[in-house]
Amino acid sequence: MATQQPLAVGLIGAGRMGSFHAETLAHRLPGVRLAAVADPAPGAAERLAAPLGCATAYTDIGDLLADPQVDAVVIATPARTHADLVEAAARAGKAVYCEKPMAVGLAEADRAIAAARAAGVALQVGFNRRYDPGFRAAHDKVAAGAVGTPQLLRSLTRDPRLADPARIPPWTIFLETLIHDFDTLRFLNPGAEPVEVFAMADALVRPDFKDHGLLDTAVVTIRFDNGALATAEANFQAVYGYDVRGEVFGSAGMLTMGDLRRTPLTSYGPDGITAECVRYDQDLFHDAYVAELADFTECVRTGRAPAVTGEDARAALSIALAAIQSVTTGGPVRIDELKDH
Amino acid sequence: MATQQPLAVGLIGAGRMGSFHAETLAHRLPGVRLAAVADPAPGAAERLAAPLGCATAYTDIGDLLADPQVDAVVIATPARTHADLVEAAARAGKAVYCEKPMAVGLAEADRAIAAARAAGVALQVGFNRRYDPGFRAAHDKVAAGAVGTPQLLRSLTRDPRLADPARIPPWTIFLETLIHDFDTLRFLNPGAEPVEVFAMADALVRPDFKDHGLLDTAVVTIRFDNGALATAEANFQAVYGYDVRGEVFGSAGMLTMGDLRRTPLTSYGPDGITAECVRYDQDLFHDAYVAELADFTECVRTGRAPAVTGEDARAALSIALAAIQSVTTGGPVRIDELKDH
Amino acid sequence: MATQQPLAVGLIGAGRMGSFHAETLAHRLPGVRLAAVADPAPGAAERLAAPLGCATAYTDIGDLLADPQVDAVVIATPARTHADLVEAAARAGKAVYCEKPMAVGLAEADRAIAAARAAGVALQVGFNRRYDPGFRAAHDKVAAGAVGTPQLLRSLTRDPRLADPARIPPWTIFLETLIHDFDTLRFLNPGAEPVEVFAMADALVRPDFKDHGLLDTAVVTIRFDNGALATAEANFQAVYGYDVRGEVFGSAGMLTMGDLRRTPLTSYGPDGITAECVRYDQDLFHDAYVAELADFTECVRTGRAPAVTGEDARAALSIALAAIQSVTTGGPVRIDELKDH
Amino acid sequence: MATQQPLAVGLIGAGRMGSFHAETLAHRLPGVRLAAVADPAPGAAERLAAPLGCATAYTDIGDLLADPQVDAVVIATPARTHADLVEAAARAGKAVYCEKPMAVGLAEADRAIAAARAAGVALQVGFNRRYDPGFRAAHDKVAAGAVGTPQLLRSLTRDPRLADPARIPPWTIFLETLIHDFDTLRFLNPGAEPVEVFAMADALVRPDFKDHGLLDTAVVTIRFDNGALATAEANFQAVYGYDVRGEVFGSAGMLTMGDLRRTPLTSYGPDGITAECVRYDQDLFHDAYVAELADFTECVRTGRAPAVTGEDARAALSIALAAIQSVTTGGPVRIDELKDH
Repeated sequence: MATQQPLAVGLIGAGRMGSFHAETLAHRLPGVRLAAVADPAPGAAERLAAPLGCATAYTDIGDLLADPQVDAVVIATPARTHADLVEAAARAGKAVYCEKPMAVGLAEADRAIAAARAAGVALQVGFNRRYDPGFRAAHDKVAAGAVGTPQLLRSLTRDPRLADPARIPPWTIFLETLIHDFDTLRFLNPGAEPVEVFAMADALVRPDFKDHGLLDTAVVTIRFDNGALATAEANFQAVYGYDVRGEVFGSAGMLTMGDLRRTPLTSYGPDGITAECVRYDQDLFHDAYVAELADFTECVRTGRAPAVTGEDARAALSIALAAIQSVTTGGPVRIDELKDH
Repeated sequence: MATQQPLAVGLIGAGRMGSFHAETLAHRLPGVRLAAVADPAPGAAERLAAPLGCATAYTDIGDLLADPQVDAVVIATPARTHADLVEAAARAGKAVYCEKPMAVGLAEADRAIAAARAAGVALQVGFNRRYDPGFRAAHDKVAAGAVGTPQLLRSLTRDPRLADPARIPPWTIFLETLIHDFDTLRFLNPGAEPVEVFAMADALVRPDFKDHGLLDTAVVTIRFDNGALATAEANFQAVYGYDVRGEVFGSAGMLTMGDLRRTPLTSYGPDGITAECVRYDQDLFHDAYVAELADFTECVRTGRAPAVTGEDARAALSIALAAIQSVTTGGPVRIDELKDH
Repeated sequence: MATQQPLAVGLIGAGRMGSFHAETLAHRLPGVRLAAVADPAPGAAERLAAPLGCATAYTDIGDLLADPQVDAVVIATPARTHADLVEAAARAGKAVYCEKPMAVGLAEADRAIAAARAAGVALQVGFNRRYDPGFRAAHDKVAAGAVGTPQLLRSLTRDPRLADPARIPPWTIFLETLIHDFDTLRFLNPGAEPVEVFAMADALVRPDFKDHGLLDTAVVTIRFDNGALATAEANFQAVYGYDVRGEVFGSAGMLTMGDLRRTPLTSYGPDGITAECVRYDQDLFHDAYVAELADFTECVRTGRAPAVTGEDARAALSIALAAIQSVTTGGPVRIDELKDH
Repeated sequence: MATQQPLAVGLIGAGRMGSFHAETLAHRLPGVRLAAVADPAPGAAERLAAPLGCATAYTDIGDLLADPQVDAVVIATPARTHADLVEAAARAGKAVYCEKPMAVGLAEADRAIAAARAAGVALQVGFNRRYDPGFRAAHDKVAAGAVGTPQLLRSLTRDPRLADPARIPPWTIFLETLIHDFDTLRFLNPGAEPVEVFAMADALVRPDFKDHGLLDTAVVTIRFDNGALATAEANFQAVYGYDVRGEVFGSAGMLTMGDLRRTPLTSYGPDGITAECVRYDQDLFHDAYVAELADFTECVRTGRAPAVTGEDARAALSIALAAIQSVTTGGPVRIDELKDH
């Protein structure tokens, strides 16, 4: 092992999530090195790369994709650029880890998947909750039959703070937030696929931005082909922190996931019992974010197929698109009658 | 107080819930006595009444309503008989406590409410969860602004065991089970009223009875006029026990209610951490069932208006009827376009 | 049952605990009536009795003991009067429920036990925690072998507020507070008896009263004859409320008891996660206080032997006296070398 | 930063804990490298070092101490060798991280502390719980006055499994297990020092080894100079897993630490509510073990003084020695009258 060359990973996108992944690639994964960073914003790539001991920084993403030293790429750019980048990276022969959503339309999702398959490169998508110990254990138990046949499921995401509503693209709550929950519901109902979707959504956090197309609160109901009924729920501003929970109820029992406590410390005082709440995704899912890149890089090195695939990304996207269509039409939408948008 | 006459309450319906109420009236409420029991089933009323020291048992409910010794009645008969009995009791000048649902149609609900108003008698409906310390404290906090404006709500009921599916009338899951959750959602979103309802339901516990009209699993989404989006969820067979929980999320925080633990005892062994689960409604809501009759009887004695009214029953029924119509039509239903059935 | 005479119970002591028991006897126990109240304080007995519909009030306790209408007595007077009253009541042929501690010295405990035995009357002592669902379930599990052989035990009591330290008799923390924990430890280690006791105690809440003999904080270590090591811990001022917890660790597992949450409501806000705390013993143990009197009165009516006996009171007292001697001498004390005080 | 030389750390002791630290030094700490491993057992050092990419392995610890390439050492050998190794390493000019206990006698503790001071090298001791988020947050809150003046404290350790009792040196439960709790109690009662100690201990897990001097269960009571009374409790075989908890109660509130749940997953089934329990120290304290070495190596690089000092090790050792003396004499022991052994 001491003599093996470390896997060289290039990071595309030096934003908040990219910065976290950069540190993981530079420091937290034995046998892996951060080989290059690319970001079109002037200076951004270098500012992230240099302190991590990575000497290669590009402002042109194409340069990174053309860099023969790079074995694999991590894509952490804005959502609407993902699918094209997956396609380009695959064509350049790089293994690809892509942040969610891998695509915002079915056609581009199909192209990305096809490109990776054609190039024979690994393609993994950033549904990090699959690497959280609680959600993973729940999946394993459901798969092992511990709750019997799933009948009712729930997954929710509440982000801690809505920053600038003017900068949120339309349908973000479905394409970027609930996409996690849609994947979680598939993960917790293994083998089943969605059949019908109904969504209600509104601008309740910032009603003044409703006219600009903001949707900051949503509830989605999904019927799966094994009969299970599921709800996914999201909101952009939970004043108490970052709230991610799941639940599977079946013929033989129930599992609940998600713990809002930041530490195992409880305080008791004149005002009652108190505990600190998890504030940010990078606190709650710190280890899961590391674990997903560890798994991806191991897939690349060993040739094992990734556990979270382009097909998973496409399936979650279908639910998101159906939810969007449901909000638009006001009625339920069947997945098999879904129109790409 | 020692010299005041106890309030004489007649019980109509000697079934499971009626038996619980009979004991409450006979033993648990100072200043109240169980004056008579009526049940059409031969011997049923007497079998319940006698051991409780109540000498008056009727097989004809009309006889109880005509009994001048009876000040107030508790109606615990099958759901479809409620509204007519409320009307008859009110006309007989009796104060009325009626188990939920007070009615299964809007017209009969209106008649029942009108009869009580015309007679000037108290009318209280059996939404016992309003008397549970957790749900009540949640309501009070929401009403005091502790969570700001409600944006997302959840209420669920999972009954422990589906007995004989052949004996379950159609739409029971909406009219008799979820009716609690519909009321809870209104209780936790005080002042707001439902606008639009969408429901998915199925026979997942006993798919073999789907052709007979059984629906044993349901998810209902409700939009309220303050923008809040709510889900109500029910299932007839939770193998772990009786599961009732609630959640209110708003602009200033979140409240969760419901505790599945039967006692504050936790066990740790080779198989991990274990605790007993609440098994039955009469365990979980024992004190709430007593408290609602205590409150009702105090209303009768003091002339105070009941806290859970016929109007509350009608509003919850509207949601149930909209959910039924949604299942029938496959689309969302606006409350203001609801057709009575 | 309707024709049976209710059991007539006389209450001795119209203080805080006596008032609770009076209400229980008057209202909460079918087949039981509050027949008389006695309290030497002028007017106290009548002020308590009258609103509960009890016409008989005495200022002379002897009059109540001589009242032929009284079948059984509940003793809720100051601790130092208990043993003599038990003896007198037994001699008067009354069944006796006595608040803890039944005695403050071994000789008087023996006299009280002997008197009850000689008179053939039931004698039950107020260790109410044995009627709490959590502690009771723990005892039953330990007795059934669920934790194997107990090795480590813990019981603690923290009262919510130290009122007037000048009015607290010496050694109260051992004789009146920790006496509960000593009984709990025996209850959770069934069949075992204490062998050796070591105690540390201090005036930490009100150090200014240390010179007056106040001890408001104490830790007691007890070795049992089955090898188990136990700690009992008390403090007179928990600003968060009333804190009673227990723990049994054995060769096959562990049980924990005690829940500080007042209701199953949890709040989430900018300051984190909060819940209300139990504030008072009569909140936490409301049902246990009722249950112990229900059990006592049933024992009297059926002739069944009480579950919490004079011998249990004496055994807990032995530990308290050993702890007092330990504080006095500064070293451990063997129960079999205990000097009565 | 990219040009700075990594800190070269040598590991002494290739056992269970040493192996964990080796991986941390090799992979988990940016700017740190595992430079050498030494272990007297033939082949042990090399078997650990090689797969981690570390080329230098010694069977003679002196060779590692003489290696000029080594900047700092981590000592993870058996307890009784620690103090001499600290002394030797300090004399060789190496910064020292030493697993607990740093010493098993006061004289050797003093020598180790003096040697580090004389050499001007950093000396940090392995009280990893100080790096656990719960215990650390508790300490910070107590130090900030959140619980007022501490009055009652508790710390406990229960190891998952007693392997071969014949291989456990005498007094291990105090010197190697409870030493953690003694440090925790000082950590949670900042600024206070122990005054008096009383201990009870026994062989309850393996009574058949009592004659060989085994003590596998212990309870220790400690009085601190601020009046606080503390208990420390240990047992060598908790069938449910690895159990470490703490509690501080003071004039203004209480803090509890420790969470036995392995993941935030809860299961509900016919047998009730279940959750998995933490099984091993390296699960529960994985991050704390990494954090303490991260902190140590940062101290070495920056010249900052370590947060857990030789003096802390000596203070915890004093309590352990007093507990041993208490078991031997059967009475309480004052720290200021402690005889070194």
